[in-house]
Amino acid sequence: MQNYKLTIAYDGTDYHGWQMQANARTIQGELTRVLTLLDHRKVTLHGAGRTDAGVHAEAQVASVFLEREFAPDQLRDAINGNLNRDLRVTGVELADEGFNARFSAKKKTYRYAICTAPVVRPCDFRYVYHYRGALDVAAMRCAAALLVGEHDFSAFTIAALEIEDRVRRLTRLDVETDGQGIRITAAADGFLRYMVRTIAGTLIDVGRGRRSAEMVGAALASRRREDAGATAPAHGLTLVRVDY
Amino acid sequence: MQNYKLTIAYDGTDYHGWQMQANARTIQGELTRVLTLLDHRKVTLHGAGRTDAGVHAEAQVASVFLEREFAPDQLRDAINGNLNRDLRVTGVELADEGFNARFSAKKKTYRYAICTAPVVRPCDFRYVYHYRGALDVAAMRCAAALLVGEHDFSAFTIAALEIEDRVRRLTRLDVETDGQGIRITAAADGFLRYMVRTIAGTLIDVGRGRRSAEMVGAALASRRREDAGATAPAHGLTLVRVDY
Repeated sequence: MQNYKLTIAYDGTDYHGWQMQANARTIQGELTRVLTLLDHRKVTLHGAGRTDAGVHAEAQVASVFLEREFAPDQLRDAINGNLNRDLRVTGVELADEGFNARFSAKKKTYRYAICTAPVVRPCDFRYVYHYRGALDVAAMRCAAALLVGEHDFSAFTIAALEIEDRVRRLTRLDVETDGQGIRITAAADGFLRYMVRTIAGTLIDVGRGRRSAEMVGAALASRRREDAGATAPAHGLTLVRVDY
Repeated sequence: MQNYKLTIAYDGTDYHGWQMQANARTIQGELTRVLTLLDHRKVTLHGAGRTDAGVHAEAQVASVFLEREFAPDQLRDAINGNLNRDLRVTGVELADEGFNARFSAKKKTYRYAICTAPVVRPCDFRYVYHYRGALDVAAMRCAAALLVGEHDFSAFTIAALEIEDRVRRLTRLDVETDGQGIRITAAADGFLRYMVRTIAGTLIDVGRGRRSAEMVGAALASRRREDAGATAPAHGLTLVRVDY
């Protein structure tokens, strides 16, 4: 048995998220189908970030043990030959047997893209949330700075989250402008469900002047979901990289 | 009556080209449908470049006379509200009555994108032609240099072209590399049908070592279609800008 590390890019528009489901097309489901075909046996694929429906990835990471031996590039091409072009394995590496894409991950980086221009370019609409109007970037940065660090992020995830430990170490939360609007880049040792999108929705409220930076700090302290902003739409979110 | 200049971007994947057709979805057809709706009368839309099926545009230009008065941004938003997101009016300007997007055009610029990497990114596959393998960029540049200038481009269009005057002034034909492959940028006072794609296909042959720069010069001189290379696929081509 050989352990393989796969790097994966996808346009999440037409997928019901990462996680395998019985009656829906998912990233894990598609990859598992192809790997099972190639290895002539049912395989188990571990993913670093279980992205939600509609969320994209530039460099998701997964690991899988296979019985058959493949040269890395040969495996990459064999998988891609069986996938739609909106889902690609961009790289394959041989991994130590102790490597698990999910549990070995040290840091994940996500980007949330907001187009503030009047018109979203045809090449962009799948990947950006369209918010028409001015956002106060300086105010958003002030609020973002309050969230960086090790905190209990209960207010920024679903209220009924089954996980007890909601402390995460947010190492980066940058708000940058580009030609089309604003990019929010978030890096952490791990993220709670909807965490990046709820942070993005809350920062958009701040940018609109509907919420102060102090209110963001207060939400963090109260740990109450209702004190944070709305969860921003999935299609603006992209998993950018995973570090090990 | 007021003449309007529209700047238009589209992902041509799901359109049968620019030109209106009875039973097919086209860019001109969609825009004419919406403008007719807004102006309460049948309008005639003139386009700068009649792009073929599958070809994209970042800044196509069209002109139209309307009876109703619109503020430019209001017209832009009203049109976009009635289109799919893969087709956008990015700008509207008031134009003099003598302006015609097609006949007033002084220069058009197209880009042909070739991905030479083993894997095409999911965000790119609609817009690039995938040629796996190394291309000799220096050789392509030599051949491209022979095509720049005022020439009869009969060898680089369809053999049965109905237009008699096949002389065009190609002012730019750049071959550049980027992170994913090669971009060919072509600018001219006008292009014959399939001209950019046939130039691209011919330069790819040169890059592969299957055709010499001299053979490209000979094709130009012979004016015989069979002396040039194959027409490269439509989806790698984008109309980048139109100058007036």
